Amino acid sequence: MQKTEQATFYGRLLEGYKPELSHSGVSGERIARRLSELSNIGLQESGGVTRSGYSLLEKQAKELVISWMEDAGLFVTVDGAGNVFGKLRGKSDGPSIISGSHLDSVPNGGHFDGPLGVLSALEVVESWKEQGYAPEKPYEVVIFSDEEGSRFKSGLTGSRAFTGQTSPDLLKGLVDENALTFDEVINEYGSSFDKYIDARNHGREIELFVEVHIEQGKILEREDEPVGIVSGIAGPAWLEVIFMGEAGHAGNTPMVGRKDPLVAAGMFLQEVERLPGKVSETAVATVGRINVSPNGVNVIPQEVYMFTDIRDIHEETRDRLVEMVRKKAEAVATERSIEVRTSCNTQITPMPIAQQLQEQLVKAVRKVGIKPVFIPSGAGHDAMIVGEKYPAAMLFVRSKDGISHNPLEWSSLNDCVYGVHTLKAFIEDVMKG
Amino acid sequence: MQKTEQATFYGRLLEGYKPELSHSGVSGERIARRLSELSNIGLQESGGVTRSGYSLLEKQAKELVISWMEDAGLFVTVDGAGNVFGKLRGKSDGPSIISGSHLDSVPNGGHFDGPLGVLSALEVVESWKEQGYAPEKPYEVVIFSDEEGSRFKSGLTGSRAFTGQTSPDLLKGLVDENALTFDEVINEYGSSFDKYIDARNHGREIELFVEVHIEQGKILEREDEPVGIVSGIAGPAWLEVIFMGEAGHAGNTPMVGRKDPLVAAGMFLQEVERLPGKVSETAVATVGRINVSPNGVNVIPQEVYMFTDIRDIHEETRDRLVEMVRKKAEAVATERSIEVRTSCNTQITPMPIAQQLQEQLVKAVRKVGIKPVFIPSGAGHDAMIVGEKYPAAMLFVRSKDGISHNPLEWSSLNDCVYGVHTLKAFIEDVMKG
Repeated sequence: MQKTEQATFYGRLLEGYKPELSHSGVSGERIARRLSELSNIGLQESGGVTRSGYSLLEKQAKELVISWMEDAGLFVTVDGAGNVFGKLRGKSDGPSIISGSHLDSVPNGGHFDGPLGVLSALEVVESWKEQGYAPEKPYEVVIFSDEEGSRFKSGLTGSRAFTGQTSPDLLKGLVDENALTFDEVINEYGSSFDKYIDARNHGREIELFVEVHIEQGKILEREDEPVGIVSGIAGPAWLEVIFMGEAGHAGNTPMVGRKDPLVAAGMFLQEVERLPGKVSETAVATVGRINVSPNGVNVIPQEVYMFTDIRDIHEETRDRLVEMVRKKAEAVATERSIEVRTSCNTQITPMPIAQQLQEQLVKAVRKVGIKPVFIPSGAGHDAMIVGEKYPAAMLFVRSKDGISHNPLEWSSLNDCVYGVHTLKAFIEDVMKG
Repeated sequence: MQKTEQATFYGRLLEGYKPELSHSGVSGERIARRLSELSNIGLQESGGVTRSGYSLLEKQAKELVISWMEDAGLFVTVDGAGNVFGKLRGKSDGPSIISGSHLDSVPNGGHFDGPLGVLSALEVVESWKEQGYAPEKPYEVVIFSDEEGSRFKSGLTGSRAFTGQTSPDLLKGLVDENALTFDEVINEYGSSFDKYIDARNHGREIELFVEVHIEQGKILEREDEPVGIVSGIAGPAWLEVIFMGEAGHAGNTPMVGRKDPLVAAGMFLQEVERLPGKVSETAVATVGRINVSPNGVNVIPQEVYMFTDIRDIHEETRDRLVEMVRKKAEAVATERSIEVRTSCNTQITPMPIAQQLQEQLVKAVRKVGIKPVFIPSGAGHDAMIVGEKYPAAMLFVRSKDGISHNPLEWSSLNDCVYGVHTLKAFIEDVMKG
C-alpha cells in the first residue's frame, strides 16, 4: 500500500514535468523523489499526512533529511529545540546565509507545506556540488521544529526557541490531547525544557534567512506565474466582539422592540467585509468563529460572540483597521440599542520584508524568467519569527486552487523547480554582496 | 430553608395585593397559598423550580392538587397518560366544559407557567362552592402531564395522548439523559405504553377547553392590563437554511473573490427581521440557532447552518412568510455566488381561536373591568393540541418583564386573581349557552 502510494505520488509529480527545467545542477527528479519519500512518513489513507511537531514521525522525517544533508557533505547539528542545521562552509568565515522551513504538518495535511522549503534549501547545495561551486559565505540548511503547532495549539515552536522569543510560563502550561505537558513531550523527544529554552544561545552569526514556502492562496494562479515575492507577513490581530441583547421567546416577542444581538451581528458581518478596502489593498478582515447563546431554535439570542481576524503587512494600517472594526461594532450596537464589548488580546506585529531584499528577489525571479509578483503573506511562517531578529526574505511557490492544510494541497513539480532556481539565484547574488 | 422560601414566596405574592379583589367566592389568599405550596415541590436554590414531566415531583404536585380537588368535592380520575380530571357534575348531563393546564416545569423554571392555569380552574369551583352556585353543565378541572417535555425534548405529551395525537414510533424512540426510554419512564410512573396510547379513548364529550396561562411576553405590560385574550396560537415552522461557501485561510485569501457564507448569513439575518411585517402584524421570524463550520478564528467559514423559527396565528400568512424567507435565502446565495439548501421539517398548524369564543372572552374581560387586549400566542400550549380536536379558548395573565422559563418568572397576585375572575365570568357565560 505504502509503495503504491509512493509510486503514485512520485508519478503524479513527474506527470507533465518539463525535464529541461532540470539544469545548473538542480534536479526535478531528485526533488520529486525526496518529496515522495517524506510523504510516506505519517501518510494517511486520505492521501494526506499527519506529522505533528515533536512526534516520532517528525523526528523520523528529520533523520531522513539529515542523512541527505550528510550525503551532501553538510555538517549537521541539532539544538535543544530539535531544530536541525546542516552547514556548508564558506570560502571565508563570517555570518551564515540560512534557508529552510519545517517538516511537521497539521493533522491530515499536505506534502508541500514545510518540506518544499527544506528540500529547496538542500537542493541549492546539491546543485553547487554538481557544479563545483563553492560559496563565499557559510550556508546552512535549517529545519525548524513544530511550525504548525497542532499538538499544543501554539506553533512556530522551533523558530521561537532559536530566536529567543519563547514564553516559558506559557509553555509550562501547554497540555496536549493526551494530557501530556510540553515538558513531558520535549523530554520524550530526547531534549529537555531547559535545553529547549537554551536553544537561543546558538552562538551563530546570521546574515539572512530566506524561506521558500507554498503560497496557500490563489494570487500566483491568477497571475499565472510559478513563483512570487513575499512583500510582508501579515500579523493577525484578533478582535473579540460580544453583542449582548435581550433573550426572549421567538414566538411571544413581537418583532417591534426586540433587541436581537444576532441581527446586529448580521449588520456587523456585512460591514467587516467592506472595511479592509478602505485602509489598503492587502488588508483583510474575517469573522471565522461565531457562537450564539443560548443557541436555541425558538429563543431570541441573548449574546453573540465573534472573533474578527484582522491582518495587514503594515502595522499602522492593520491597527487602523482594528479601530475601524471596533468603532463599527460600537455603532451597530448603538443603532440597535444593545450592548457591545470588544477586546483585542492577540496582536502579532506584522513583518514587512526589507525593500532591499525584495529588490534582490526581483533580480532573482527575473533571472529565472518570471515576472515579479508581490504577495502579502497572510499566514504566519518561521520567517516571521526569524525576521524579528534577523533580516528575512521569503518566496512563494504557486498552490493549486490555493488549497492547503488538506490532502489536496498541490504544487506542480515545474513550479517547485522554478522555486529552487529562484532561491539559488537569490542566494548566489547574496553570496557576492 | 424550605419553610423560609415558602414564607418568602407567599409573602411576596401578598405584597401589594388588593384584598378587595377577593370577592364572589374567589380568594387571592388561597391562590397564593396553593401557588406557594406547589412552589416547594422541586424548589431550587435559585428560587426556581425543576419539576420534569413524569418525574416523582410532578406526580407529587398532582397528588397535592388532587387532594384539593377532592376537598372541593370533585370526582377525580387519572388516565393512562397521567392526565388528571376533577369533575363537578352539572345540573344537566351533557358535554363538559374543561379548564386547566399543567404542573411540570422546565429545569430551573418559574412557579406560574402551568400551575396558575390549574389553580385558576380549581378556584372557579371553590368560588361556586362558596356562592352555592351549581353549574348547568358538567365542569372538569384538568392537569395535563408533561407539557414542557424537557425530559425527552418533546412536550405536550399529556394533551397529545388525550386527543389521540401521538406518534407511537416517535415515542418508542425517545431516550432521556439517563438513557431511560419513554417506555421505561411511563412504566416507572405507574402506567404503561399501551395505557398511555389508550388515553385517547376517554369517552368524554367535550364542549370547550379554556386555559389560563401566563403571557410569557410583554404585550400586557405595555397595554397596562392584567389579562388578555389569546387571538390564536402560532404554530411554528422551522426552516433550516444552510449556506455553503468556500473555506480559506483568513490571512491568505484576498477580500475580492471570497465566497464567505457567514457574510451571506449576515445579509440573510437582516432580511429575516424585515419580512414578517410584510405578511401580518402578528407574524414573527427569528434565527435563534446558528452553527458555523469549521468555526476557526483564522478560517473563512465553509458552511453556516441556521434555523429560522417562523410563526403566525394563521396558517396562510405563516406559510407565505416561510416561502418569502426561503426565497430571500436563495436570492442572497445567488447574489453572493454561493450555494444554499433550505428545508422545512417542522411545520405545526397554527390554531386560530374561534371568533365567537373571542367575543365571549371580550364580554368576560369587560365584566371584570378590563379593556380587551388581543394577543397572539407565540408559544405552544396544551390549548393548541386540545384545539385541534375540540373548541378551545385561552386567557393570558400579565408576566413581569415578559420573563418565563426562569426563576425570575413572576405575575402579581392581583393579576392572577383578575385572571380567575375573567375565567369565572367566561365559564358562567358559557354555562348559560
